[in-house]
Amino acid sequence: MAHKFYKSTSQSTNPAKGIILYGKHPVSQAIANPNRVFYQIFATAEVAPEIKSLMAKEKRDVSLLKIVERKEFDKLLPKEAVHQGVAAWVEPLESVALEDVIARCEKIENARILILDQVTDPQNVGAIIRSCAAFGAVALVVQDKNSPQESGAMVKASAGTIEFLPICRVINLSRAIDALKKAGFWCVGLDGYAEVTLDKVNKSGKIALIMGSEGKGMRRLVEENCDQTVKLVLDPKVESLNVSTAAAIALYEFSKF
Amino acid sequence: MAHKFYKSTSQSTNPAKGIILYGKHPVSQAIANPNRVFYQIFATAEVAPEIKSLMAKEKRDVSLLKIVERKEFDKLLPKEAVHQGVAAWVEPLESVALEDVIARCEKIENARILILDQVTDPQNVGAIIRSCAAFGAVALVVQDKNSPQESGAMVKASAGTIEFLPICRVINLSRAIDALKKAGFWCVGLDGYAEVTLDKVNKSGKIALIMGSEGKGMRRLVEENCDQTVKLVLDPKVESLNVSTAAAIALYEFSKF
Repeated sequence: MAHKFYKSTSQSTNPAKGIILYGKHPVSQAIANPNRVFYQIFATAEVAPEIKSLMAKEKRDVSLLKIVERKEFDKLLPKEAVHQGVAAWVEPLESVALEDVIARCEKIENARILILDQVTDPQNVGAIIRSCAAFGAVALVVQDKNSPQESGAMVKASAGTIEFLPICRVINLSRAIDALKKAGFWCVGLDGYAEVTLDKVNKSGKIALIMGSEGKGMRRLVEENCDQTVKLVLDPKVESLNVSTAAAIALYEFSKF
Repeated sequence: MAHKFYKSTSQSTNPAKGIILYGKHPVSQAIANPNRVFYQIFATAEVAPEIKSLMAKEKRDVSLLKIVERKEFDKLLPKEAVHQGVAAWVEPLESVALEDVIARCEKIENARILILDQVTDPQNVGAIIRSCAAFGAVALVVQDKNSPQESGAMVKASAGTIEFLPICRVINLSRAIDALKKAGFWCVGLDGYAEVTLDKVNKSGKIALIMGSEGKGMRRLVEENCDQTVKLVLDPKVESLNVSTAAAIALYEFSKF
């Protein structure tokens, strides 16, 4: 269902509307990902040999590599993008269906899934993808409508880990939480007003961790659908953590079992 | 010593070379900090009343507030700065002397200090300041030469917590570590190649946590000076975490005692 919805967006059906990745590490990780469709790779003469040999190693069509002057990157990318002399015009990755994620978790006793409710900053989502990958989460689930589409900035912030972390874009988060509950997941929401602290939660078994946006938190209906809410204890002088920092800490805590 | 060195930099002695803070939260926190010296506050007509009443409440000279058109901010700030209609021309905060930090820790049984070795990105340092404040660290220690000076971007990334987290800029990190050891601190370095994991360290007593830059890690002499090194366990597919994410997790782990 989610898969179908994603495919219908113009971004993924029209190659002319693909996205531009940049930076050595993100582009290298993308080249190594067999699911990543490339239209063109741009590199300076200096960086090209390294990229070409990586493309050959990964059985990519090396004719897609175009050697360009450094100033060409200014036309392709925002000024502040740290491209290191390499960029790639690619298709965004496809959303994974929630049913496939659940099926994949069947034999993973302590499977972890992270669910984001209305986290809209691409940098934060990218950083959260990196933490999901680092702490072995099986997938990231987001609501398609309120989440940023894949972009060069998001891929860069993920340090290329987006190439192997399944991302599931769903229409309705509450329904996704229901499906995960039925599949045996304990659904834990992170909320500053909760009574139990993060480290006191039972960590065995399958857990889906749910986080809202910085400031607003989870929407009421999403929060009411959680099995339990937990908090991080912060110094009273500090209002909140950045959402990607809070996610990293929660993923770390739940990776210890 | 560190204090003196910092005062001699041109940035803090010449008001014309002050820094520009921006954003409602960072500027409000700065107004509330009695140690923050202001030269001018710029606000749009829309935001000015809110800022003026905060200035009055904090006994600030309201004549420093200048109402400006939105386009004026483009002259003051980089294009990407999210200023929300308010900016402030201020003196950077003064470095705190290491001896004062140590004296302050005398009666704090489980004092925590974070030491950064060559973390150069202002956004990362700002985010790390926020995590230090959130998890109750007494101070942040950095090497003056290899650390970014205070800037609007750093203050913004700290979400204004820089106003109350003492920062100690020292000349020589190894000597600072020696001084902390003498004062009873157990000095723990974070290093991907360590044998012990972060959660297995004895957390009682005073602890100084030392982190190097992303990629390079701590310099050899700094690492050799640690009492112990510890690692974060990551999925083998993921090379590293962002340094500010790793710092947040370590500060969180050491805040549980």
